[in-house]
Amino acid sequence: MSFKDATLTEVDAAMNEAHVAFLSYKNFSGKKRAAFLRAISDEMEALGDELVKTAMSETALPEARIIGERGRTTGQCRMFADYIEEGSWVEGRIDTAIPDRTPAPKPDIRKKLIPIGPVVVFGAANFPLAYSTAGGDTASALAAGCPVIVKAHPAHAKTSELVAGAIKKAMNKTGMPAGVFQHLHGSGFEVGQALVKHPRTCAVGFTGSFLGGKALFDLANQRPTPIPVFAEMSSTNPVVLLPDSLKKDFEKTANTLSSSIVLGVGQFCTNPGLLFAVEGDGLEQFIKYLSAGISKSLPAEMLHEGIAKNYVKRLSETLSQKGVKLEVQAETESKTGDKDQGRPTVASVQAATFLENPSLAEEVFGPFSLIVRCKDMNELNSVVGRIHGQLTSSIIGEVEEIAKHTSLINMLTEKAGRLIINNVPTGVEVCPSQNHGGPFPATTDSRFTAVGTDAIKRFARPLSFQNFPDSLLPDELKNNNPLGIWREVNGEMTRKNL
Amino acid sequence: MSFKDATLTEVDAAMNEAHVAFLSYKNFSGKKRAAFLRAISDEMEALGDELVKTAMSETALPEARIIGERGRTTGQCRMFADYIEEGSWVEGRIDTAIPDRTPAPKPDIRKKLIPIGPVVVFGAANFPLAYSTAGGDTASALAAGCPVIVKAHPAHAKTSELVAGAIKKAMNKTGMPAGVFQHLHGSGFEVGQALVKHPRTCAVGFTGSFLGGKALFDLANQRPTPIPVFAEMSSTNPVVLLPDSLKKDFEKTANTLSSSIVLGVGQFCTNPGLLFAVEGDGLEQFIKYLSAGISKSLPAEMLHEGIAKNYVKRLSETLSQKGVKLEVQAETESKTGDKDQGRPTVASVQAATFLENPSLAEEVFGPFSLIVRCKDMNELNSVVGRIHGQLTSSIIGEVEEIAKHTSLINMLTEKAGRLIINNVPTGVEVCPSQNHGGPFPATTDSRFTAVGTDAIKRFARPLSFQNFPDSLLPDELKNNNPLGIWREVNGEMTRKNL
Repeated sequence: MSFKDATLTEVDAAMNEAHVAFLSYKNFSGKKRAAFLRAISDEMEALGDELVKTAMSETALPEARIIGERGRTTGQCRMFADYIEEGSWVEGRIDTAIPDRTPAPKPDIRKKLIPIGPVVVFGAANFPLAYSTAGGDTASALAAGCPVIVKAHPAHAKTSELVAGAIKKAMNKTGMPAGVFQHLHGSGFEVGQALVKHPRTCAVGFTGSFLGGKALFDLANQRPTPIPVFAEMSSTNPVVLLPDSLKKDFEKTANTLSSSIVLGVGQFCTNPGLLFAVEGDGLEQFIKYLSAGISKSLPAEMLHEGIAKNYVKRLSETLSQKGVKLEVQAETESKTGDKDQGRPTVASVQAATFLENPSLAEEVFGPFSLIVRCKDMNELNSVVGRIHGQLTSSIIGEVEEIAKHTSLINMLTEKAGRLIINNVPTGVEVCPSQNHGGPFPATTDSRFTAVGTDAIKRFARPLSFQNFPDSLLPDELKNNNPLGIWREVNGEMTRKNL
Repeated sequence: MSFKDATLTEVDAAMNEAHVAFLSYKNFSGKKRAAFLRAISDEMEALGDELVKTAMSETALPEARIIGERGRTTGQCRMFADYIEEGSWVEGRIDTAIPDRTPAPKPDIRKKLIPIGPVVVFGAANFPLAYSTAGGDTASALAAGCPVIVKAHPAHAKTSELVAGAIKKAMNKTGMPAGVFQHLHGSGFEVGQALVKHPRTCAVGFTGSFLGGKALFDLANQRPTPIPVFAEMSSTNPVVLLPDSLKKDFEKTANTLSSSIVLGVGQFCTNPGLLFAVEGDGLEQFIKYLSAGISKSLPAEMLHEGIAKNYVKRLSETLSQKGVKLEVQAETESKTGDKDQGRPTVASVQAATFLENPSLAEEVFGPFSLIVRCKDMNELNSVVGRIHGQLTSSIIGEVEEIAKHTSLINMLTEKAGRLIINNVPTGVEVCPSQNHGGPFPATTDSRFTAVGTDAIKRFARPLSFQNFPDSLLPDELKNNNPLGIWREVNGEMTRKNL
């Protein structure tokens, strides 16, 4: 089943309708928007088996994964519902007037976050539910008070259409304006580009390739009125294996990492693509056990043909680079009969060679890791110091050994959005403390997270109200604090009335 | 006295030194950075009369203004010192582990803001102290933990040099690393461009013209690694005069606005450049009293020759546009003998003509306002709906009348960073609730303020720490909360220990 691409007229109509919806939706209470978000979760669940089967058939992902991802998606909508119903996220600040201050009276000023306007969301290939039609970008934008226009990912357009239908039902049930959510198809670049360039578009959410994300970022900055693009693009999620600990824990470390490398056919943005270690017996033992784990893994069908082809191409390019040594490759034929699709592979390279060849630091999207063999911790520090921005970076070792390498941790803080000790990078917990983001090229804006409650901040901006009578202030800033939210009043955090 | 332009080698050395300083400075406690900021204020004050006289001679600004601006500048440094010493600004979030959660254990994750890296600050022509060498950008970046490299404004290079000397003294007294603050001169574009393009530069602060700010924004986005640019560029700060109230309060309104239009020779970014009103007796009376106020005002020397020439040029262009009617122009000769410099002027134009000619909506930097004459409130709403992004927007009228125009307020929230009722836009209070920012082209990033405590957020990004032992966590995230800061712990705001 294929869907018709939106025309440029339809794009224009959608954006204008989104703008009209924004003028009312932005003023809806947190409670009302929360009801809408909860209804989206309910309606998604009401799709039942049809949604699971459709997503499975379009993405080749197994049933357990799709059911788990559905739970994550509905859970995110409900999390944002709770968050905006509570309401403190608007960062209320109140400074009361001092009329008799000299030389000039101090005016009453109050500030809060307001929604930024209609947001265009691009569905992500690797998360047909959790980062797509009703995924984290959509949920956080709707929570902030922004209408959303989703460009369905063509590789799972039917899944996207089903979820869009659930959102439309939720809109009707909770009295939302017609343009608050819209869903367009586009098999090429034209629809996406027109959406990003449209004057009514105020922000963009994207998860995908570096080339795709960077192209949208450039397009958005070249508009007459530039707009923010939150593109999560590429990350190799470096893992540093400390040598003394590796000598003892090679087997456990190898088992943990091999599972993480092949998880979901390596199609997670937090897949560990680079492993940094010091040469020696510990590393050789680690590679032996890692190889055992990898060779047992099954190759599997990837998300779509384009991703599979790209993996084969990037893998073969990487393995053919000077100095790259193939360590292990899963030999078993996949259940789909295509053993080249998503074939788990680990290679290694000397640190000096790695540094000379920047292409080796680039992401190979799929179940592949490159071990960078360092002569000693000095060389490891030096090579890690030259990697570019990442979503995550991990250190594996006993705490006593890690504590000896604070300068390494200090350096890694400059490279990543999330630092991990003795955990794998895959598995992104949805919670207030999560930062799923990081310095370029991991994302186009390291100041914001795509996962967790703070993701809402991407789609908001501050507005000050000076000398407003109480009756004309939004509820969040009124004297009697009708919502009971946390506010900074004359420099003090409080939930009290004025 | 003139200073030598920095060479490209000096720019490179400065940025590399800033990077080295960053690696230690970023880890200094809030208390230690606060001592540095307070020492800057002390050393600026210790410059005494020399600083005041130098700034007066370079900017043509009167003594009282310079003394006031010095107080604002030292006050800002001390405000940020207090703010980072308290420490809650890092937005600590803690979610504790649930090891026995099914299907997967929940890891311990904690998050806080960290400094973004070396920041390049461009001195602003119109604020030789408060938005220049030790101004709001510098103070907030140093507070966040970022080294600062200032490109002195050539029009007040000697003032800048004096303040830089005070900062260097403060660095020595409080044990700061050498590269934490550096000061370069550049009379053309070359030094500024090299600073923005340097790979060690992580963010840019700029206050000035649209052309200058937009050029830096484009340059920063075209880098191999794009960086954020916080450019505050142009704003006409529209003021809406409601008709029923104007019929009664024309005299008071005229007096208030004429003072605001000519304040500081109109050289404030919040100068009211556009006045929207409905035609009728109230407006004619208002113009009569406004003209009386304006014609009494003295023309005065502007900040520098370039700004004066630009004002004369833009003013003459605007007055020569079809349908623009000169209402009043100060006739008195200025004390400097040059009556064309900073000559207060008010003109008017019909709303329909204004809409047809986009150049009339652009800023004329200086003591000029254009009155847009609307036939009725419908036309006023329609023309206000088409203005572009602004720092501020004001409504003047009795509260009862304002309350009848909530759709106008609703529309203005999309246009400005600060909404004002019955106050003039000039006079930007430095406080937590201030938002000095706004939609493009007022600034390049409407999500951040350049004034007030939240200005620190421009130079920070979040970092998550997953599964860290307590001993390796930064103090802000440790179990026993040694700094006693506000944190969100498992979803609840608290200052308690874990």
